Amino acid sequence: MAGNKAVAYQGPGRVEVVDTDYPEFELKDGPGVNPANVGRKVPHGAIVKAVATNICGSDQHMVRGRTTAPTGLILGHEITGEVVETGRDVEFIKVGDLVSVPFNIACGRCRNCKEGKTGVCENVNPDRPGSAYGYVDMGGWVGGQAEYVLVPYADWNLLRFPDKDQAMEKILDLAMLADIFPTGHHGCVTAGVGPGSTVYIAGAGPVGLAAAASAFLLGAAVVIVGDLNKERLAQARSFGCETADVSLGDPKDQVEQILGVPEVDCSVDAVGFEARGHGQDAGTERPATVLNSLMTTTRAGGSIGIPGLYVTGDPGAADDAAKEGSLSLRFGLGWARSHSFFTGQCPVMRYNRQLMMAILNDRVHIAKAVNATPIPLAQAAKGYADFDKGAASKFVLDPHGMLGSRA
Amino acid sequence: MAGNKAVAYQGPGRVEVVDTDYPEFELKDGPGVNPANVGRKVPHGAIVKAVATNICGSDQHMVRGRTTAPTGLILGHEITGEVVETGRDVEFIKVGDLVSVPFNIACGRCRNCKEGKTGVCENVNPDRPGSAYGYVDMGGWVGGQAEYVLVPYADWNLLRFPDKDQAMEKILDLAMLADIFPTGHHGCVTAGVGPGSTVYIAGAGPVGLAAAASAFLLGAAVVIVGDLNKERLAQARSFGCETADVSLGDPKDQVEQILGVPEVDCSVDAVGFEARGHGQDAGTERPATVLNSLMTTTRAGGSIGIPGLYVTGDPGAADDAAKEGSLSLRFGLGWARSHSFFTGQCPVMRYNRQLMMAILNDRVHIAKAVNATPIPLAQAAKGYADFDKGAASKFVLDPHGMLGSRA
Amino acid sequence: MAGNKAVAYQGPGRVEVVDTDYPEFELKDGPGVNPANVGRKVPHGAIVKAVATNICGSDQHMVRGRTTAPTGLILGHEITGEVVETGRDVEFIKVGDLVSVPFNIACGRCRNCKEGKTGVCENVNPDRPGSAYGYVDMGGWVGGQAEYVLVPYADWNLLRFPDKDQAMEKILDLAMLADIFPTGHHGCVTAGVGPGSTVYIAGAGPVGLAAAASAFLLGAAVVIVGDLNKERLAQARSFGCETADVSLGDPKDQVEQILGVPEVDCSVDAVGFEARGHGQDAGTERPATVLNSLMTTTRAGGSIGIPGLYVTGDPGAADDAAKEGSLSLRFGLGWARSHSFFTGQCPVMRYNRQLMMAILNDRVHIAKAVNATPIPLAQAAKGYADFDKGAASKFVLDPHGMLGSRA
Amino acid sequence: MAGNKAVAYQGPGRVEVVDTDYPEFELKDGPGVNPANVGRKVPHGAIVKAVATNICGSDQHMVRGRTTAPTGLILGHEITGEVVETGRDVEFIKVGDLVSVPFNIACGRCRNCKEGKTGVCENVNPDRPGSAYGYVDMGGWVGGQAEYVLVPYADWNLLRFPDKDQAMEKILDLAMLADIFPTGHHGCVTAGVGPGSTVYIAGAGPVGLAAAASAFLLGAAVVIVGDLNKERLAQARSFGCETADVSLGDPKDQVEQILGVPEVDCSVDAVGFEARGHGQDAGTERPATVLNSLMTTTRAGGSIGIPGLYVTGDPGAADDAAKEGSLSLRFGLGWARSHSFFTGQCPVMRYNRQLMMAILNDRVHIAKAVNATPIPLAQAAKGYADFDKGAASKFVLDPHGMLGSRA
Repeated sequence: MAGNKAVAYQGPGRVEVVDTDYPEFELKDGPGVNPANVGRKVPHGAIVKAVATNICGSDQHMVRGRTTAPTGLILGHEITGEVVETGRDVEFIKVGDLVSVPFNIACGRCRNCKEGKTGVCENVNPDRPGSAYGYVDMGGWVGGQAEYVLVPYADWNLLRFPDKDQAMEKILDLAMLADIFPTGHHGCVTAGVGPGSTVYIAGAGPVGLAAAASAFLLGAAVVIVGDLNKERLAQARSFGCETADVSLGDPKDQVEQILGVPEVDCSVDAVGFEARGHGQDAGTERPATVLNSLMTTTRAGGSIGIPGLYVTGDPGAADDAAKEGSLSLRFGLGWARSHSFFTGQCPVMRYNRQLMMAILNDRVHIAKAVNATPIPLAQAAKGYADFDKGAASKFVLDPHGMLGSRA
Repeated sequence: MAGNKAVAYQGPGRVEVVDTDYPEFELKDGPGVNPANVGRKVPHGAIVKAVATNICGSDQHMVRGRTTAPTGLILGHEITGEVVETGRDVEFIKVGDLVSVPFNIACGRCRNCKEGKTGVCENVNPDRPGSAYGYVDMGGWVGGQAEYVLVPYADWNLLRFPDKDQAMEKILDLAMLADIFPTGHHGCVTAGVGPGSTVYIAGAGPVGLAAAASAFLLGAAVVIVGDLNKERLAQARSFGCETADVSLGDPKDQVEQILGVPEVDCSVDAVGFEARGHGQDAGTERPATVLNSLMTTTRAGGSIGIPGLYVTGDPGAADDAAKEGSLSLRFGLGWARSHSFFTGQCPVMRYNRQLMMAILNDRVHIAKAVNATPIPLAQAAKGYADFDKGAASKFVLDPHGMLGSRA
Repeated sequence: MAGNKAVAYQGPGRVEVVDTDYPEFELKDGPGVNPANVGRKVPHGAIVKAVATNICGSDQHMVRGRTTAPTGLILGHEITGEVVETGRDVEFIKVGDLVSVPFNIACGRCRNCKEGKTGVCENVNPDRPGSAYGYVDMGGWVGGQAEYVLVPYADWNLLRFPDKDQAMEKILDLAMLADIFPTGHHGCVTAGVGPGSTVYIAGAGPVGLAAAASAFLLGAAVVIVGDLNKERLAQARSFGCETADVSLGDPKDQVEQILGVPEVDCSVDAVGFEARGHGQDAGTERPATVLNSLMTTTRAGGSIGIPGLYVTGDPGAADDAAKEGSLSLRFGLGWARSHSFFTGQCPVMRYNRQLMMAILNDRVHIAKAVNATPIPLAQAAKGYADFDKGAASKFVLDPHGMLGSRA
Repeated sequence: MAGNKAVAYQGPGRVEVVDTDYPEFELKDGPGVNPANVGRKVPHGAIVKAVATNICGSDQHMVRGRTTAPTGLILGHEITGEVVETGRDVEFIKVGDLVSVPFNIACGRCRNCKEGKTGVCENVNPDRPGSAYGYVDMGGWVGGQAEYVLVPYADWNLLRFPDKDQAMEKILDLAMLADIFPTGHHGCVTAGVGPGSTVYIAGAGPVGLAAAASAFLLGAAVVIVGDLNKERLAQARSFGCETADVSLGDPKDQVEQILGVPEVDCSVDAVGFEARGHGQDAGTERPATVLNSLMTTTRAGGSIGIPGLYVTGDPGAADDAAKEGSLSLRFGLGWARSHSFFTGQCPVMRYNRQLMMAILNDRVHIAKAVNATPIPLAQAAKGYADFDKGAASKFVLDPHGMLGSRA
């Protein structure tokens, strides 16, 4: 059996492409695999040849050493590819299918899956509800920044593209269905974005840009994206967003200049716990800055979608409270304004088929919005480094040279 | 006090511009005014100078003599204009405001209004819940195809445009907020249209075209519009719709050619009770054709939005059942497919502010989609006649020459 | 291998207990089995020993000869039992589990299942979406009025009771989770029943009574049940319902006497296509009577839940329209009142866990409400006959003598 | 004109019954009246003779001196009474009507009111959206712990009881419609409580008990109420709740003993910012304790309803962060569990009619659940004091001796 080149976390600031075993229909022991999952049989799985496998901002938390991820952990949870082998219990997915793999792993048999809450599946992570490929404390399912990856519960998890040729023409767009497009969309949906909404999105990274593209797809009237990074703000403007440069201070004033009123109908936190301050605090980590700002900027009665990741423990945080995931939130302000707050992993399956249809029928150009940039698998380390520096790009690894990436 | 030129129904097939009284803050007796409403004081009302006042397909039912509308009834329920006078109890709407008038008249005080069901307000029509300007059996509120019109409960009913100059630039778009844009939108919303949906819309008249524009605004992947009228189908194609010519038969086959499957996610009946048959029955009225067809075309578990008007009595119908509003529906088919059906007047207030925002921010071009065509008030009769012949236009009367209409 | 006694349809008016084969993990050929399903492997299935297996009103449609059900069809889709064997792909359900089997068979892998629409699963019935055990034109899955039955996709379909002893104490209540309690509940939920609602339920058969019990569980203020059968009306009164005897005419007047107003907030059709007329038409089948009556009785803006079965074809119907499932509906009346209509099989899985919790914690006494009456399997024919005569009982077959039934 | 005895805040820990002016249809200057509201005409108002007017836990925040409420402020926002006079613009409410007054004052004309968000009405409080009678920083509308009170926008705000005699028989129940019953209900609805839910309610004060009663009305399977106060826990048990004594520590363990699992489906914070710690911290104020505890106790994917009040500023708080309404929340924990959080004033109008129906039809006994206890107006000070000491009673002032209160 062939080997399997894959991207491994090798300690703070270091990722490398390493040789690993080709997947089998069993979860073997390895870095980060939950002991209770070792040896788990996966006859319901499919082996997917990764055609496109993206670097995600949430991978960066691990790579920066902000988590307890062990050395050797294979990264990658944004996978699109071709099914090359199926387990004995797979009935509907077929070898040859070109598929999107939702980043959340779900069993399709527990209460939460039956309720559509695949982000908190009860049967795949022995520690707690919710799982993902290649992620610390998520059960140990092997990451997919690799040539091949095992996808459990394939009939439930995989989304098949209806036509392979058509799909390959839009493969960079479709590659965003594994995570960031549904994730940004979930932020907008929970924030209540609809026709005519005014929307503020904190963060012009890939999730923020995906949220902005989604807001337009949902009919938003005005979409304002805030960030400290001028290159990313320019990227947001490239597809019709207004922008707020939060290095100038809280976005409220810029919102007022744009809209005539200092508040929006809906807002989305696409930043999460590694937020920096606004204005003169821009150089410092301020994990509660975004949420507190959104309580100011969102109109009374409005909702705040929070796809940005907040963690239960952050060993690298600046203070003790943040180390255990506590934030000093102006909750009284939110209460006075009757805000609702929606957190957690996006349940990708709730949205990916519909967003696929929007892509295939040219209703949204998500690859362009997030500036999807294919690079060879071998250049993963550089991709991670550039992304960490704030490149206004979404890097898509190209393990089999099918995306036309150039070194 | 000045007079008030207005469009009156003068018997089957006849409308005329007549001289009427300038409105006062009281509902006076007149053709079609419910006796229980005669003399009703309206200190909560505003007098609106009609800037744009559209001819609606539902007006045609009266003009064709398909209702019990009395001669002399002043028509018109799609009104956009400037407030020129306010009653003593009006607190927030001001003289000079440029406003959209929802076609449904609502009190803003009853249970249904409090629940957002302004289409079935309990306090404005003595006969039954629900009312409209210038419409038979709707309480007798005087129609607004006129120079001036009285709007009761002005603080509740009127939608003010935030900037008059900006609004006048888009006045033909904004004129669609009084009825057909929200009405088509309501059809789509109740049908469950969202990002990535495939949608079939029966009818390419103004409501059908507005529904199509709305479907795109909601993120639909593919919008298919069906009609017998080739000119109207061409209008639908002009903004990206696919079309089905139902003179060729049930649209199912054409849907399959377009989508690869013979069914859509969501469908909208924008035709109503004056439907003609499909295929070789196209010359004959077949009031159940559209609904029966949609039960075939809508996927199992899907919803059918029904903004097209069905009536409780139709004296001019072809058979006894239809005369009392009974249709021979293949309800068992709908049941087997777990369909949901949503009927009734659109509660305009639920949507008009949001759609206004979408218009003002260039997210939708509804006037172009429905081919809004201003004509002088004096040419109302010709407008009615052309529309009845199937012109692919939405005629907008221009009582004060503010729309640049040409004779 | 042991045999398997089961209830077979033997022609109009005739059911018999017959000897059949013990189930295997494959769908074998037999009466009513869809050819495309013959030989289908079911490694994901479980064999369930039926502890309680109810006779349903929808079985009666077949037994009365109103369908194309073939002789020899094994009946029964309301199954509660113990898992005695599991297929090789079953991971979470275990031998010994006491379970409820939703009457709709669903794969847990198709789009509709993922959306929670298990009543229209796409993968189990080759003819069309939606399937059930022991039912004509539903794919041919063998019925469960039997000692043993095969349940496909066991991990997805089965609901395990948390404690077997506790469950056996309430087994007659829990037996209603397979169909009628969720079905009646679905009628209420789609009708919008909530705290303080006034509700009219057409039909005091088991589904109607289950809907009434559910309405109370949902907090309804007043529940009115209508029927022609005085014994069933008395059963409804036994747990707090008001009743309307529709042999006296349309229920509107009786509703007014009870509520002071002639309409209710919400209504449920628990009768379906074999409806009889109201008042002097009570002796005649009038398939549209119930729906037309509900359009009169439901307040403007209200919803009508329709769990009662309407069929696509009814060879035994009184007239040609009804033979193809067409009804003469006063749809214009519904439209004028802005009604919404919800049809189709209840997706049992959406509700059964929650209703189980309500039963186990003594919040509802559904067995008492529907007068659940256990009888030996051998007396199935008598049970069918008594039920057909209008007995105010829900008969629960007791194949293994575990329910204390008496001959 | 007669005078008007009313309850005034007279400084920390002091309330007194004072003589004030009988209301007119204008908002006069006085303690706590927003200058921008002074002189506001109220022709749309009604003068209500208070039949029952309750002391609320949120009044205690002011009386304890935890706010900037000025001396002389007339308290009271839970008002039930008889209309004795109506302003000139009132059309539907009539003198003699017995009514419930929602504690939130709303105009019925702004965007938020039209959306049903009457808790954040834009037109009644010049400072910010949202208002209430007799409350600091809420616009200055005079409180209703008085013989008479002015209710603005009477046609919109007032809920009329259908039958006065019937209503007087249940007047202590109906008195809870002004605030705590809808408020507790809103907590449950936003928490997603429905049939079969397991629910944890933090706080056994009147709002917590009302939430518990509401949870049962919504069909909850198990309702667990937590508090430090043993008398209040006993009150909760009196109508079927399970209880958790949080003086023993975080409720998680007690939840597990009751349910077999350490978490609930839904939870409600009926405590707010004056929370004390759990276990050994019970003697100390810990404003984030309840929210942090609920993130532990609520299952993944669940929702947390937060009717308990959190404030934007708390001058009497223990630390600087709390003084500006900031809490140290374990937000990362909530995120990991995909929680949703719903805050703010309950929009009473969304629920009060339905809950009234449930009361009038004996579906809920809210007065008994919260131990409603009428006392003479003259004993208001004692009522405040006893309530502050933790009496398991909801005190209802009886200004006109119509409730049979005894000294």
